[in-house]
Amino acid sequence: MIQVAILGHGVVGSGVAEILLTHKESLQKKVHEEISIKKILDLRDFPGLSYSDKFTKNFEDIVNDDEIKVVAEVMGGVNPAFDFVKRCLEANKSVVTSNKELVAKKGAQLLAIAKEHNVNFLFEASVGGGIPIIRPLNNCLVANDVDEIAGILNGTTNFILTKMITESMSFKDALKLAQELGYAERDPSADVEGHDACRKICILASLAFGKHVYPDNIHTEGITNISLEDVAYANRWGGVIKLIGDVKNTGNGMLDIFVAPMLISEDSQLSSIDDVFNGILVRGDATGDVVFYGKGAGKLPTASAVVADIVDCIKHLNARKYLFWSDCDGSNVLPYDESVSAMYVRANGSIKTAQSVFNKITQLHRENAPENEIAFTTNEMKIKEFNEKIKELKENGVEVLNTIRIGDL
Amino acid sequence: MIQVAILGHGVVGSGVAEILLTHKESLQKKVHEEISIKKILDLRDFPGLSYSDKFTKNFEDIVNDDEIKVVAEVMGGVNPAFDFVKRCLEANKSVVTSNKELVAKKGAQLLAIAKEHNVNFLFEASVGGGIPIIRPLNNCLVANDVDEIAGILNGTTNFILTKMITESMSFKDALKLAQELGYAERDPSADVEGHDACRKICILASLAFGKHVYPDNIHTEGITNISLEDVAYANRWGGVIKLIGDVKNTGNGMLDIFVAPMLISEDSQLSSIDDVFNGILVRGDATGDVVFYGKGAGKLPTASAVVADIVDCIKHLNARKYLFWSDCDGSNVLPYDESVSAMYVRANGSIKTAQSVFNKITQLHRENAPENEIAFTTNEMKIKEFNEKIKELKENGVEVLNTIRIGDL
Repeated sequence: MIQVAILGHGVVGSGVAEILLTHKESLQKKVHEEISIKKILDLRDFPGLSYSDKFTKNFEDIVNDDEIKVVAEVMGGVNPAFDFVKRCLEANKSVVTSNKELVAKKGAQLLAIAKEHNVNFLFEASVGGGIPIIRPLNNCLVANDVDEIAGILNGTTNFILTKMITESMSFKDALKLAQELGYAERDPSADVEGHDACRKICILASLAFGKHVYPDNIHTEGITNISLEDVAYANRWGGVIKLIGDVKNTGNGMLDIFVAPMLISEDSQLSSIDDVFNGILVRGDATGDVVFYGKGAGKLPTASAVVADIVDCIKHLNARKYLFWSDCDGSNVLPYDESVSAMYVRANGSIKTAQSVFNKITQLHRENAPENEIAFTTNEMKIKEFNEKIKELKENGVEVLNTIRIGDL
Repeated sequence: MIQVAILGHGVVGSGVAEILLTHKESLQKKVHEEISIKKILDLRDFPGLSYSDKFTKNFEDIVNDDEIKVVAEVMGGVNPAFDFVKRCLEANKSVVTSNKELVAKKGAQLLAIAKEHNVNFLFEASVGGGIPIIRPLNNCLVANDVDEIAGILNGTTNFILTKMITESMSFKDALKLAQELGYAERDPSADVEGHDACRKICILASLAFGKHVYPDNIHTEGITNISLEDVAYANRWGGVIKLIGDVKNTGNGMLDIFVAPMLISEDSQLSSIDDVFNGILVRGDATGDVVFYGKGAGKLPTASAVVADIVDCIKHLNARKYLFWSDCDGSNVLPYDESVSAMYVRANGSIKTAQSVFNKITQLHRENAPENEIAFTTNEMKIKEFNEKIKELKENGVEVLNTIRIGDL
């Protein structure tokens, strides 16, 4: 019998307990061992549950219990999760987590501690919820050099954008609906400002390219500026607007990595990933494009990924998984100014001015546009050059309303 | 250093050699061991290659070489591949293969031999080419009870159907084009009659549900009967026709499993998987729908999956992977007559007759249809009941031109 502990009995934690209990038999068949929950850490009481006797309010009860071999951290946030995870690893326990903030901010450090103590630190559930992506990236694509990873990594913003695109709902109304349905928090900033997607692309980039990429080091744009006018122009251009986390290997060890809304062609597999679903595109030099699609969040999808990691830890109690990246100071991140993209621009002013500033543009039209409104796409150029031209545009009396990257996905 | 051998230097085999050589350094980093090709079995000579000295025409050179720890079988076909793989496993070598016919027909037997000798038998490349699906099914979805797997598993037929749908090309012309482009064999029957897709859904079903499902035991329909008329009606219905391999757990240990063309709603993630791409939908009780998408065939995608398996074998030289299913005599396969589906029917005759025979139908229309032509969809019913009604229809003077399942994917 293998004893495990769960840190946190919130949405994901209760899901982990539920799956371990309801799938006990099939799990035992697969692992050839019974998995038993020994303790659950939570400050609240849960008197009505069939496993109420497992709860403790004291972390020491878990870290000092030598029978507990695997710990699932599903509390979220960096504090106190970081200290708890660190101490569990130092106590020679394998740890699995769904905590993307923890992995994005402390991954290199925790992986090093896990390595030192010959235990595992796994985090399949931290990206893409129930979609298998960390393990396929690490194992199945081992024979590929990854060229690019691009994903719709946040279900809340994808739900909002889908409502704007398919029902012409305003950003404000779509956000309100997302909150009513429980998809968005009362303070939605981590989602709508791109921070959640940022943590996830940082984790994927760290894993794929072997060096930690910290969220603070990368350009992060949310969707709060996206308007129904932009949605309409994107439609006329032949695509949709999606919030994308993107990392490209520029070939000289530098990563072009950012989170930003993007115009995505309707031919792209990512364009049809709607509502709260996530989709992650991995471009390998051998496999070509591989896309993983599914529910990126939610109690049971996320919990099932946590349980899969628990099972993997149990299978590898005496043999570490080769999941590792080293620390890095951000020197492998291309400055955003140097990133290259074609761009979409919406503005009030003269299309002739735009033409003379950008040299070559393609104008877009939409129905019922105000007389003074223009929209166009540019050729590929460095963001730095683009920003200079936008400045020039403004100096020539054009009021720039929005600019959005154009994706090649 | 780990010594490996490759059986067969055709498209996939030469790709495996290429990846092992061109990715030598990054592989070594990931495995912490140098992977070296010791021998390649092929009856032909390859004088111009940088690794010409590795070739042998004699299998005994490989099976009797104790230094060789991992063997990649990429010859295809059951004979002599089965004997070779069996003997390698019995000689305590781990074996990886891309050979779906071998796995579909002999998987249970080879897995049992591998288990007996405490070595691994892996076959990620046998389904979905470069798309990771075997490993995610086995590992990541371990915490799920799988309810259904449905996939576009054959790139050749998907290419043909895509040309019929998007360019109104006839089946015959699309097949000819596929042959010209190298997507279809001169004898295309394994693809267009569904046998290739059948092998793949058998492998997925065996793995997901734990008992071997043999290709001979399942209903297999190809796409040779699909006409542009059917494509037009599917469009008016709101979807497309795709060749689907499908397996559903009916809940009492019986599998509803078959390969058949299906009308798929345009809302389904599978509907936008076009050309030679494959897509596999896995429905788990915890994860919900997860979709894997990518190139299902081709030299480097398939070879990269083979190499990923080689790496996995090397990581688990002393610890078997938990990849296993037991043999079964077909008693777990629901007779196709008992399978339940809504159906599409195209016929020459009276819609009133159809209405009176089927009680409730929904008529479909298309432009420029001959006056006598009718098309309709039925409610869900057992195939047995449907076939009885089709017989009744014929007895009442209706000429039935085609019938196609309607998918709920």
